Amino acid sequence: MLEQAAPPEVTRWLAERASAIGFDDLPEEAVMVARQCILDWFAVTIAGASEPAVAILREEVLEDGATPVATLVGSGERTSAVNAALINGTASHALDFDDVNMSILGHPTVAVLPGLLALAEARGASPRALIEAFVAGYEVACRTGELMSPSHYNHGFHATATVGSVGSAAACARLLELDPDATATSYGVAATLASGLKSMFGTMCKPLHAGRAAQNGLSAARLAARGFTSRQDALECAQGLAATQSVDFNPEEAMRAEPLDFHIRRNLFKYHASCYLTHGAIEAGIKLRTQHDVSTNAIARITIRVAPVTDRVCNLAAPATGLEAKFSLRLTVAMALAGRNTSAIASYTDAATQDPELVRLRDMAMIVFDETFPEAKAEITVETIDGVIYSANHDAGVPDSDLARQQGKLEDKFIALVEPILGGETRQLLQRLTSIDEAASLDEILAMTRRSK
Amino acid sequence: MLEQAAPPEVTRWLAERASAIGFDDLPEEAVMVARQCILDWFAVTIAGASEPAVAILREEVLEDGATPVATLVGSGERTSAVNAALINGTASHALDFDDVNMSILGHPTVAVLPGLLALAEARGASPRALIEAFVAGYEVACRTGELMSPSHYNHGFHATATVGSVGSAAACARLLELDPDATATSYGVAATLASGLKSMFGTMCKPLHAGRAAQNGLSAARLAARGFTSRQDALECAQGLAATQSVDFNPEEAMRAEPLDFHIRRNLFKYHASCYLTHGAIEAGIKLRTQHDVSTNAIARITIRVAPVTDRVCNLAAPATGLEAKFSLRLTVAMALAGRNTSAIASYTDAATQDPELVRLRDMAMIVFDETFPEAKAEITVETIDGVIYSANHDAGVPDSDLARQQGKLEDKFIALVEPILGGETRQLLQRLTSIDEAASLDEILAMTRRSK
Repeated sequence: MLEQAAPPEVTRWLAERASAIGFDDLPEEAVMVARQCILDWFAVTIAGASEPAVAILREEVLEDGATPVATLVGSGERTSAVNAALINGTASHALDFDDVNMSILGHPTVAVLPGLLALAEARGASPRALIEAFVAGYEVACRTGELMSPSHYNHGFHATATVGSVGSAAACARLLELDPDATATSYGVAATLASGLKSMFGTMCKPLHAGRAAQNGLSAARLAARGFTSRQDALECAQGLAATQSVDFNPEEAMRAEPLDFHIRRNLFKYHASCYLTHGAIEAGIKLRTQHDVSTNAIARITIRVAPVTDRVCNLAAPATGLEAKFSLRLTVAMALAGRNTSAIASYTDAATQDPELVRLRDMAMIVFDETFPEAKAEITVETIDGVIYSANHDAGVPDSDLARQQGKLEDKFIALVEPILGGETRQLLQRLTSIDEAASLDEILAMTRRSK
Repeated sequence: MLEQAAPPEVTRWLAERASAIGFDDLPEEAVMVARQCILDWFAVTIAGASEPAVAILREEVLEDGATPVATLVGSGERTSAVNAALINGTASHALDFDDVNMSILGHPTVAVLPGLLALAEARGASPRALIEAFVAGYEVACRTGELMSPSHYNHGFHATATVGSVGSAAACARLLELDPDATATSYGVAATLASGLKSMFGTMCKPLHAGRAAQNGLSAARLAARGFTSRQDALECAQGLAATQSVDFNPEEAMRAEPLDFHIRRNLFKYHASCYLTHGAIEAGIKLRTQHDVSTNAIARITIRVAPVTDRVCNLAAPATGLEAKFSLRLTVAMALAGRNTSAIASYTDAATQDPELVRLRDMAMIVFDETFPEAKAEITVETIDGVIYSANHDAGVPDSDLARQQGKLEDKFIALVEPILGGETRQLLQRLTSIDEAASLDEILAMTRRSK
C-alpha cells in the first residue's frame, strides 16, 4: 500500500447520520416532499410497467420462480423482494419521467425507493418507517453524489446507478435498523456492486440501471445484516468508489452539517417526458411561444445556450426513435416551440423524429455551451425572418418553493399517467398515497396498484 | 456528442470471433487446458463451498426460493441458474486458489464457468458444448482484459469481476448460439452491469465479485436472447467500459489475429493457497530453502524484488488474519523459507500471522519494486548472519509447457482439496472430469459433486 494520509471517514459519518434519522424528528417539509416523491414514483412506475424493457425483464426474472413476498407495481404479480426491487426499479425509470436531484446528477427515487419498498412490504413495515428510511437513503445518495461531483458523472458513470446503489443500501439498512458498523458495511457491499455506463442512454440498459441500483442496495443491506464482510470506508479509501471513479473528492461537501432541511427538499420533479437536462430548454421554449406567439414558420434561427454537461447527456443531433428524442435538446426545443405536448409520453414517437416541421426547427437550432451556466439552466434565443430577436431562460435546477403548487402539478401528472391504466381507482390511490404516512399498512396501497384487468 | 474518429469495432469483432468457435476446430491443447480448468474449478469450488462468505450468501439467496434447475456444487442443493451462478462463482473464488491469466490480470475460470455451467445444466447441454462455450468466453475475457491493461486493474478495478462479466456473457451467448448482433448486445449488457473494487481484497466481497461476474454474464446473455437492447460497441465507445475505467486502450492487442492457439493455453494454475502475485516469490523462496538448506535462524536479511503491480495487490506488511496472510508477500515468503506448506489452505490461519518465527522473517524482509519485472516474477535474496548471499527467482507468469506434468499436479491438488469432503467418491469424480467431453451429460458429474452427507 502507498503511504498516505488517512482519508476522512466519509462512509462512517454517513452511516452514523443515516442511522440517527427518525420520522418524528423530520421537518414537515421533508416529509411532504418524501410523500410527493413516493406519489410521483407510483405514477411513473404504474405507467412504465408495460414498457418493453420491463416486459422482457419480468419474463426473464419470473421464469425462475420465487417465494412471493413483494408486489410488482403495475402488474400485481408478486415475487421475492430482490426481484421486485429490480423489476419495479426498472419500470420506474423506463419512461425517464421520474424525479431528479442535482447533488447526484441523477435520479434519486427510482434508485432508493424500489428496494426499500419491497423490503418494507416483505417485512410488514409501517408507512412511517418507509418514509424515515427513504429520507435516510435519499440523504446518503445525495451526499455520495456530492463526494464525487461532477467528474463521476461527466466521465461516463451513470450516477443514478452507482451513487443510487449506495443510497438504496442506506434506505434498506435504515429500515433493518442496522447499527453504524453494519450500515457502513452495507455501503461497502453496495459500492462494489455499483455499476452503470452513461453510454447506455437510449437503450433498455438505462432503466435497468435503476433497477440494479435498487437491487444492489437491498442485497447489500441484507448481506450486511447476516454478517457478510466488506470495508467500512469504501467510499473514500484507496481504490474505493471515489478513487476509482472520480477525480473530484469533496468530503467537506459530503459531510456538510448544513443543510438541516435534508437534501430531499431540493428534489426536482419532471413535468416533461424527456431527459431532465432538456427541461430548462423546454420551459424556455414554452415561455417564448406563449409570451410572444411566434409562428414556427417565422423562425429563421434558434440558439440554445446550455451548460457543457448536457453535451454528453442529451445532445443527440438527429434522433431517430422516440427514445432518442428524449435525449435531443434540438428536437425537444423544436417540440416546445411548435406547441407539442412535451409532458405527454405519447408525443415522443419515432414518427415525431421525422416530422417535417420539427426536423426543420431541429436543424436550425445551434447549441452553445456556456461554462457559467448551472447544469439545468437553458436560454433560448429565436430570430425571426423579420430580424426580431426573442429570448427566454429557465433554470430547472431550482426546486419549486411552493409545495402546494408542486402537489397540484404532481396530482395532474399522476392522473394523466395512471388513469388510462387503473381507471376509476386512480383517484382513490392518489388520495391514499397523498397521506401515506397515516395508512396502517403498505399492503392496502400496493393492492390498489394492480391493473384493473 | 464530441466529434471524434470512430473507434475500432472491438466488441463486434470479439462477438463474431466467439460465435465462430466450434469444438471440432479447437486445437487439442486448448481442449486439454479447458478440461484442466474445469477440473481445477470443481476442486476449489467443492472446497470453497463451506466458507463463511458462501454460507451467508447461500442462506440469503435460497431464502427467496426458486425453481431448482441448477446445482450448487459442494452442497448439492439446486436453485435457479442465476442463483447458482452467483453462489458457485463465489464459492469457487472463496479460497483464492483458482486459476489466473495475465491478460486479464485476474481469474478467468471463476468468472467464465459458473454462469455457463448453470445454463448448460438447466438446458441439458452437452459437455462438448460446455467446453466450446467456455473456450469462447475465456478468449473474450482475455481480449477484453488486454484492451484495458494494465491501467484498468492498476487503477483499482477488480478485473476478474469487470472483464469477467463480459467473459461470462461471451460463454453464455455462445452456448445459447446467439447471432453476432445479439452476442455483441450481451457484451454491452454485461459491460454496464460489471463492477468490483480492488479495495475489497481481504473481505468477503472479493469472492462475491466472481459470483457477480458469472451472474452478470448469464443474465446479460439471457436478456439479449429475449430482445433486450444495449449498445453493440460498449467496450470501445465514448463513455463505454474502456473509456470510463482505463487510460489504456489497446484495440490492436484485443483484436490480434495471433495467437491461433487461444488464450486458454496461457492459463496459470495456482499451487499455493495465496494471491497469485505471491507465487513467484514463494517458488523462489522454496528454491532457496531446498537448494541451500538455509536455517531460518541463520537469516539476517531478506530482499524481495517484484513488479510494482504487487504493491496494491499483495503487499500487506503485517497481516492479522489468515485471509490477510494470503495477500502478504512478506509473510508468504517467510512461510516458504520456514518450510511451511504454502499449498495447504490450513496453513493460512490467524495464528500463523502471529507465529514468532514467521513474524521475525516477515519484519526482516524488504520489498524492492522493479519496473523491469513482469507482473508475476520475483527474486528473493537472502543474506545470512555469516554474510553469505543466496538468490533465486521465479516467473509465475510463464505457463507450464508440459501439460501432462500440469495434469499430475492438478490431480494432486484435486485430491487434497476434495477428498476431505467427498471421501471415496473423489477419485471417480476426478476421472469423470478428466474426460468430461466424453461424458454423455453433465448431470451425472454434477450429482457426484454433492457432499457425502
